[in-house]
Amino acid sequence: MSEILSLSDLDFGQWAEALRRRFEDNAQRALPVGDGPLGKLCEAMRYAVLDGGKRVRALLVYGAGLLTQAPIKALDEAALAVEYVHAYSLVHDDLPCMDNDVLRRGKPTAHVKFGEAQAMLAGDSLQPEAFERLAQSGLPDAQINALTFCLARASGLRGMCGGQMIDLSSVGQKIDIDTLRRMHELKTGALISASVRMGALCGNPCLYDRAKQPLEDYSTALGLAFQVVDDILDVTADTAVLGKTAGKDVAADKPTYVSLLGLDQAKALARRCEEQALNALDRIELCGDFEKGTCRRLRELACYVIGRNH
Amino acid sequence: MSEILSLSDLDFGQWAEALRRRFEDNAQRALPVGDGPLGKLCEAMRYAVLDGGKRVRALLVYGAGLLTQAPIKALDEAALAVEYVHAYSLVHDDLPCMDNDVLRRGKPTAHVKFGEAQAMLAGDSLQPEAFERLAQSGLPDAQINALTFCLARASGLRGMCGGQMIDLSSVGQKIDIDTLRRMHELKTGALISASVRMGALCGNPCLYDRAKQPLEDYSTALGLAFQVVDDILDVTADTAVLGKTAGKDVAADKPTYVSLLGLDQAKALARRCEEQALNALDRIELCGDFEKGTCRRLRELACYVIGRNH
Repeated sequence: MSEILSLSDLDFGQWAEALRRRFEDNAQRALPVGDGPLGKLCEAMRYAVLDGGKRVRALLVYGAGLLTQAPIKALDEAALAVEYVHAYSLVHDDLPCMDNDVLRRGKPTAHVKFGEAQAMLAGDSLQPEAFERLAQSGLPDAQINALTFCLARASGLRGMCGGQMIDLSSVGQKIDIDTLRRMHELKTGALISASVRMGALCGNPCLYDRAKQPLEDYSTALGLAFQVVDDILDVTADTAVLGKTAGKDVAADKPTYVSLLGLDQAKALARRCEEQALNALDRIELCGDFEKGTCRRLRELACYVIGRNH
Repeated sequence: MSEILSLSDLDFGQWAEALRRRFEDNAQRALPVGDGPLGKLCEAMRYAVLDGGKRVRALLVYGAGLLTQAPIKALDEAALAVEYVHAYSLVHDDLPCMDNDVLRRGKPTAHVKFGEAQAMLAGDSLQPEAFERLAQSGLPDAQINALTFCLARASGLRGMCGGQMIDLSSVGQKIDIDTLRRMHELKTGALISASVRMGALCGNPCLYDRAKQPLEDYSTALGLAFQVVDDILDVTADTAVLGKTAGKDVAADKPTYVSLLGLDQAKALARRCEEQALNALDRIELCGDFEKGTCRRLRELACYVIGRNH
């Protein structure tokens, strides 16, 4: 914990960058290596996880862990677990039978580089690897179980996969804003909420209980904002800045917040979400159980997610 | 436990059938249902798991649980978890980018019935669902963690997915018997061993510790035998009896125990494995820590796996 706290003199950009480097080093060490065919599978798993992304989910784990005074070692493992699941979902989503995308984080997608079969297997392998990380967090068994359940719930039918299924079913369909919102709550929101919850679960259980409901409100608003901003960027940003194919939702005739609400209303919705997220953090800080400034990084993360340009 | 023990007057076929029915009822209740797109995903998950297979892995969970006096409720959940993972692996293996198979357990494969994207998602969803089942076993947290770790390890790079990767890399290649064995130890053996270990882990930890090593020897021999018999049946059985496409390994130019050893030597190897498996159980029964007859079902399971015709 001390190591994260000692970063308190850093501004948000420096803090995030320090933790991204920390995450990258941890992932380099934690991701398996091998020879022969297993080595090839390891290579694809590493390609999927390493050197990419804004690590929003990992940063949320660390930011939420600050609230409950979680040990840094446990946060490291939870951050790996959640980013492994996120990485696997991107690999599977990019496959030809799903979104058939060729560019991700500025690089060829995994199936372009390794072939479909190996990419699918790399995704399949990252999922149990995530659960193995949690088992190695050094936390008491009850907390490991809570983390495992939280990650499993957010990954499956009631989370990410369920959202992906709604997405699949909605291509070329007219769907309303409620269905769109439900889709994203599951597809992206569930894992974002799980990141916040898992970070907080790594720490003091009493503090977790006190912060639980406002943290849920925070992460629900943040998850929605994240997707709204994604949809805005899909029409306003360049492929080069985005690191993935811009304009692909429009091209695929996918319903988005922009296509349903228009650009201005979508931007207004993102701002409302930001307010809700920050209000939830105010409630935590006002309740008196937490040290002043405890929510600083989560606050900054909300502003970052909503203000980002890629 | 009492319910399984009360089946002790049944012969093996009756015992196995009673537990298969029990498993099927549990799976019917445990597998999710829903409306709309999520309902469609549930349907594919149910299709992948229900009404199929010999349930060898579930039976091994129950058989091993007898040794350590495991509670039936925990065995039920462990059996579901292990069969969910097995079912997901079949769905993914059958996909066009892998084995491209159209028949499984006498029915169209999941991607033939639901399309590739939905089939892949159903597989992806079954994996976290398996971990959720373990969390609901009612066992102490330390045991749930041990089960989770065991299942994760057996499913990923160091187990099933790793074996599948060796398999992918060996199509059309000349590989030796050691590589073939290593491939199957991971691809099939790891989950079979995990089934035995998980069943035993559900019970008394002291009994588990005493049975641990012989159980590993038993399941290693059984896992090898299972695959050797599979390879034998691929050349000797009909598609109708097998419930999956017979002769497909030969057609795909895949190395098998039969192609490397010849049919007679493969049969001899299966018999040697059976002996080793039964010897390991003798060691458990001779050590004096277990009730007489405690290994009966595992013994019968070994004979069943090796003597089966499909």
